[in-house]
Amino acid sequence: MTDAKPVRVAVLGYGYWGPNIARNLAETQGFDLAAICDTRPEVLSTARRRHPSAFCGSNPDEVLADRTIDAVAIATPVSTHCDLAVKAFASGKHVLLTKPIAGSSREARQIIDAADRAGKVLLVDHTFVYMGAVQKVRSLIEAGELGQLYYFDSVRVNLGLYQRDVSVLWDLAVHDLSILGSWVPRRPTAVACIATGHVEGHPKDVGYLTLLYDDSFIAHVHVNWLSPVKVRRSLLGGSKKMIVFDDLDPVEKIKIYDRGITQKTDPATNARGPLAYRRTGDVWLPQFDLTEALMVETTHFQRCIANGEQPRTDGRSALRIVEILEAAEQSMREDGRAVPLPSEA
Amino acid sequence: MTDAKPVRVAVLGYGYWGPNIARNLAETQGFDLAAICDTRPEVLSTARRRHPSAFCGSNPDEVLADRTIDAVAIATPVSTHCDLAVKAFASGKHVLLTKPIAGSSREARQIIDAADRAGKVLLVDHTFVYMGAVQKVRSLIEAGELGQLYYFDSVRVNLGLYQRDVSVLWDLAVHDLSILGSWVPRRPTAVACIATGHVEGHPKDVGYLTLLYDDSFIAHVHVNWLSPVKVRRSLLGGSKKMIVFDDLDPVEKIKIYDRGITQKTDPATNARGPLAYRRTGDVWLPQFDLTEALMVETTHFQRCIANGEQPRTDGRSALRIVEILEAAEQSMREDGRAVPLPSEA
Amino acid sequence: MTDAKPVRVAVLGYGYWGPNIARNLAETQGFDLAAICDTRPEVLSTARRRHPSAFCGSNPDEVLADRTIDAVAIATPVSTHCDLAVKAFASGKHVLLTKPIAGSSREARQIIDAADRAGKVLLVDHTFVYMGAVQKVRSLIEAGELGQLYYFDSVRVNLGLYQRDVSVLWDLAVHDLSILGSWVPRRPTAVACIATGHVEGHPKDVGYLTLLYDDSFIAHVHVNWLSPVKVRRSLLGGSKKMIVFDDLDPVEKIKIYDRGITQKTDPATNARGPLAYRRTGDVWLPQFDLTEALMVETTHFQRCIANGEQPRTDGRSALRIVEILEAAEQSMREDGRAVPLPSEA
Amino acid sequence: MTDAKPVRVAVLGYGYWGPNIARNLAETQGFDLAAICDTRPEVLSTARRRHPSAFCGSNPDEVLADRTIDAVAIATPVSTHCDLAVKAFASGKHVLLTKPIAGSSREARQIIDAADRAGKVLLVDHTFVYMGAVQKVRSLIEAGELGQLYYFDSVRVNLGLYQRDVSVLWDLAVHDLSILGSWVPRRPTAVACIATGHVEGHPKDVGYLTLLYDDSFIAHVHVNWLSPVKVRRSLLGGSKKMIVFDDLDPVEKIKIYDRGITQKTDPATNARGPLAYRRTGDVWLPQFDLTEALMVETTHFQRCIANGEQPRTDGRSALRIVEILEAAEQSMREDGRAVPLPSEA
Repeated sequence: MTDAKPVRVAVLGYGYWGPNIARNLAETQGFDLAAICDTRPEVLSTARRRHPSAFCGSNPDEVLADRTIDAVAIATPVSTHCDLAVKAFASGKHVLLTKPIAGSSREARQIIDAADRAGKVLLVDHTFVYMGAVQKVRSLIEAGELGQLYYFDSVRVNLGLYQRDVSVLWDLAVHDLSILGSWVPRRPTAVACIATGHVEGHPKDVGYLTLLYDDSFIAHVHVNWLSPVKVRRSLLGGSKKMIVFDDLDPVEKIKIYDRGITQKTDPATNARGPLAYRRTGDVWLPQFDLTEALMVETTHFQRCIANGEQPRTDGRSALRIVEILEAAEQSMREDGRAVPLPSEA
Repeated sequence: MTDAKPVRVAVLGYGYWGPNIARNLAETQGFDLAAICDTRPEVLSTARRRHPSAFCGSNPDEVLADRTIDAVAIATPVSTHCDLAVKAFASGKHVLLTKPIAGSSREARQIIDAADRAGKVLLVDHTFVYMGAVQKVRSLIEAGELGQLYYFDSVRVNLGLYQRDVSVLWDLAVHDLSILGSWVPRRPTAVACIATGHVEGHPKDVGYLTLLYDDSFIAHVHVNWLSPVKVRRSLLGGSKKMIVFDDLDPVEKIKIYDRGITQKTDPATNARGPLAYRRTGDVWLPQFDLTEALMVETTHFQRCIANGEQPRTDGRSALRIVEILEAAEQSMREDGRAVPLPSEA
Repeated sequence: MTDAKPVRVAVLGYGYWGPNIARNLAETQGFDLAAICDTRPEVLSTARRRHPSAFCGSNPDEVLADRTIDAVAIATPVSTHCDLAVKAFASGKHVLLTKPIAGSSREARQIIDAADRAGKVLLVDHTFVYMGAVQKVRSLIEAGELGQLYYFDSVRVNLGLYQRDVSVLWDLAVHDLSILGSWVPRRPTAVACIATGHVEGHPKDVGYLTLLYDDSFIAHVHVNWLSPVKVRRSLLGGSKKMIVFDDLDPVEKIKIYDRGITQKTDPATNARGPLAYRRTGDVWLPQFDLTEALMVETTHFQRCIANGEQPRTDGRSALRIVEILEAAEQSMREDGRAVPLPSEA
Repeated sequence: MTDAKPVRVAVLGYGYWGPNIARNLAETQGFDLAAICDTRPEVLSTARRRHPSAFCGSNPDEVLADRTIDAVAIATPVSTHCDLAVKAFASGKHVLLTKPIAGSSREARQIIDAADRAGKVLLVDHTFVYMGAVQKVRSLIEAGELGQLYYFDSVRVNLGLYQRDVSVLWDLAVHDLSILGSWVPRRPTAVACIATGHVEGHPKDVGYLTLLYDDSFIAHVHVNWLSPVKVRRSLLGGSKKMIVFDDLDPVEKIKIYDRGITQKTDPATNARGPLAYRRTGDVWLPQFDLTEALMVETTHFQRCIANGEQPRTDGRSALRIVEILEAAEQSMREDGRAVPLPSEA
């Protein structure tokens, strides 16, 4: 691969997240950061100072028309995703698209169809999925270390950047749902959601979303833009082990607890005995890959393009998250009643 | 008061919580711990060793019949509350009753009526209400320090003592609801609840309960008996200040954050301006009374009996909590739909 | 043992620590708390309320003269230890003595001699040695889990109770030295110490004490009565594993880190290779006994008396701590120069 | 200033710290990052990718000879500082020099003399002095908020990068001494130090350094390369307030405690009364500037060059730190005895 021609990639949108994508693409082996696009002159001048060898312009069509550019990373507002991504695929580019994939499942499907038609890579930037800690937990689950899964409970609150057009659920819960999707791939059956807003003329800023499954597993997400403290913490309970994932802990991000309850069954009579507690069992903090998640993701994007690997966060998994959020909005309109989710198409 | 005759008090039930009540009654000025009742011989022998001057017996009727005993603290299982409390009032005793007041609002009303008929004190042991930290927050709210209240979010999870007959909501959420009631006395209008259980033949062990009000204020309680870690943390958001109450922090239980958002309005045109953030404002850890909450409560109980003060946690506030839990159970049966709460009788 | 006559024990001194000793003796199988002595009437009345079946008086001689009393726990000021303990042994009592054993090594030796002459048990109340977490670490060390020990570093600071006659070293460092003695039984060769005081007419309130050994192992203790925060944390470094013991963490008191450095040696040439780091190795939180340390200690005291076991914290180990503190004071007078310690007598 | 010609600056040494300096110089208004020098080809190629408009070469003499370059940042090993800095001043450059200024006070003085002779700016990169949190504490001290200062206690431990030629004191304590110098500008009178090493053929890895002053103020620094956990925490005690500075806390870096002791004096008799404790006073977390410290420093360096401001971390303050470290080494050779420090030259 070292002697292959580097993939020439452009970044569209250099606002909040775009600079991080650009920085990682520039450092990723196999990519050549060819262009950066943004409509704001002062933003472009920063981009130019940081990436003097990249072409910096204000017109994305110019970039999409450039036949020497192989791929684009789209980091513009959600409302522009569908239009830009469809155009990009039509121009034969591979696409890395920031989350959420689109503002509706209808648009998400259009993007997926465009990628399929073009036969190009579509990777949706659900960054958390690429984090070493999240991957470590996934591999523990797959190895059966946790036993039967009981619940997922995730809190993502802080004093947030209010957005005019996207509620706290579309802004934050999308992360928890992507982590959940990585850990618990099976589909939820229904979603219940209650949310409220405290600033007139702005979207909802506090939300609680519950996912139901076809058994007793339950997932709950609490998102809040009005919290005085920042919390990013997920609990995952299983019959054998339980996990705390605290993304803000600089060192002890994952703790695995050998705690739980066990119910002995009498082998002769098959009668259930009393509950036994494993309450003060050992705690274990496993090692995991510390590479910046976005760097893992851009490296993976490069391999998907160069070697035809399947993106770990493809359009379909991104669509599923949008479907959950749409059902959540319907649940809000119905006073929190659990709304069924579409089964696999 | 020092020369008044001490109030002779008995403790019925010396299981998990009874010993704490007995210890505090024994140390409270103005009480004389006269008797302890429990049906289990080995429990009684411990009680006897700790309180050698108290009469220790197994028959509560014997205690209730004793005319020299003025008050009883009932710390028996919830299912026995109604019967014992009604009998106690009929025998002319004042009653301290562990939480929840009863297993149903119907029983709770019977207890309240019995207290009213007897003209005796009924104090329900919602211990948290008497905690210095909780009282401190209440006085800050009453002084207007927090501005308009936005939300209450409370988490109470741990690897819990499974109970055969009471779900995690009746066991744990009752505490959060009592703290909420102390901080936000106005009545919620509806409750939505989703819960699930993971141990066959046992009550639900994970629950999420949301309270709605007649404005955008929202309260949410997360309780869980299957958590590997113990968390007891409440957030209270207001337009001026926000509070974190972490009951497990040995020292920094209350933190007050001067953070939030402000929306400037143009005085001339009355048009709303952009949102401004107070994001890194000062944090303040106020002093508060460190006395053991149960000691504050037993002292208050003594004054209610001796001086006719009104219990801070009376039957009506305890009933309200039971009504919320009953509506929560109905919401569970209706897939999480918000169920209206009865307005003040 | 259950049918043996209980050991009748008295507590002399019911001030700060005495009530804890009395409570634990009262709950320890095989002891009968027979008497409590204190010269302060208000203190005695509290003792009487809590232990109504114990004789409560103000004259220790009365207790010592009582032939039915087998043992005494002495919890009076250090300056009275020698006199009281020697008398107690002369009266044929077993003695539990609060720390430090005495204010000088001369007095400590008198007490030890008196115990030896009387053939009675002398247990010095270095409570930390009986803590489950401390014992767990000791057993890990003894099992070779840590490899070669590198250093012990202990911090014990808080806003302290100033004492008129005892410096912060005699008050606090004594705990760290007892933990160190339990973990690293071999004798230090010298002690260096610097301390200073900030309140006129009061003893030193900030101190740093370093112990040197006959190899590169080093132990350091930082004690401070003027700290705004309370810290009780010890690090123990070894060639294989390292340990953090945080006594204030309600749950995660011991963490064992699989971290360190390794130096590979070329087997052919025997040349030392470059250093390798184990930097992000697993962390492990082992289980340990959660029994209150003082209860473990009083139970052990009972067994020493009843079964002739050797006290884990006997007079000689307590004397060694006093010798270290005396040498530390000499080092302070010599500008911090390391002062040699007496070798085993 | 905006229309002034930018200062053309070069970075010598692109190893561990050089990239951070280069990145900040590149982003600092008024600087033009003109060149980067390093002898390692693979390092240079990284530099080239990140800063494509800077000249990247392996020969520092080439850069020093370039008359269009106005300033250099020297981030090479300490042993090369003196030679490179003296040459740079001789070539008429301003110099930013990483810490410590030099490996000996003799060399430090040569550098200072060279800067003086050339009339150029010498700023030593004691980065912590430019941190918002450190500056905030300094301004509180200067405003008298802490009252009379009692002690400074600093812990800086982690599993460290062993260096062949520099001990843990020269590597880490240098930071604590620069913070101390910023907070407590008066000169210590003596230094006592004990250190030990655990890896054959490598410098000392655990060290304890104590500074004495002409009153009861005391400063203590604990540095350790063999710690399983990373700690960066300084306590500063004063008669009115006390401060905890925890550099690793992502949010609550500074806490100010209204705690301490007070000794009332009888105004009539002038007799000292008993000690009073302020033990549970309020805690306050002040706001401070969150700008990256190195960016504050490079901006300050630019202003020193452009406007003739005096560097906050000049050669003389850096020399003082080297003098303390030299005296510390002498103290080690004298078994920890406090060694007097030179008074102001």
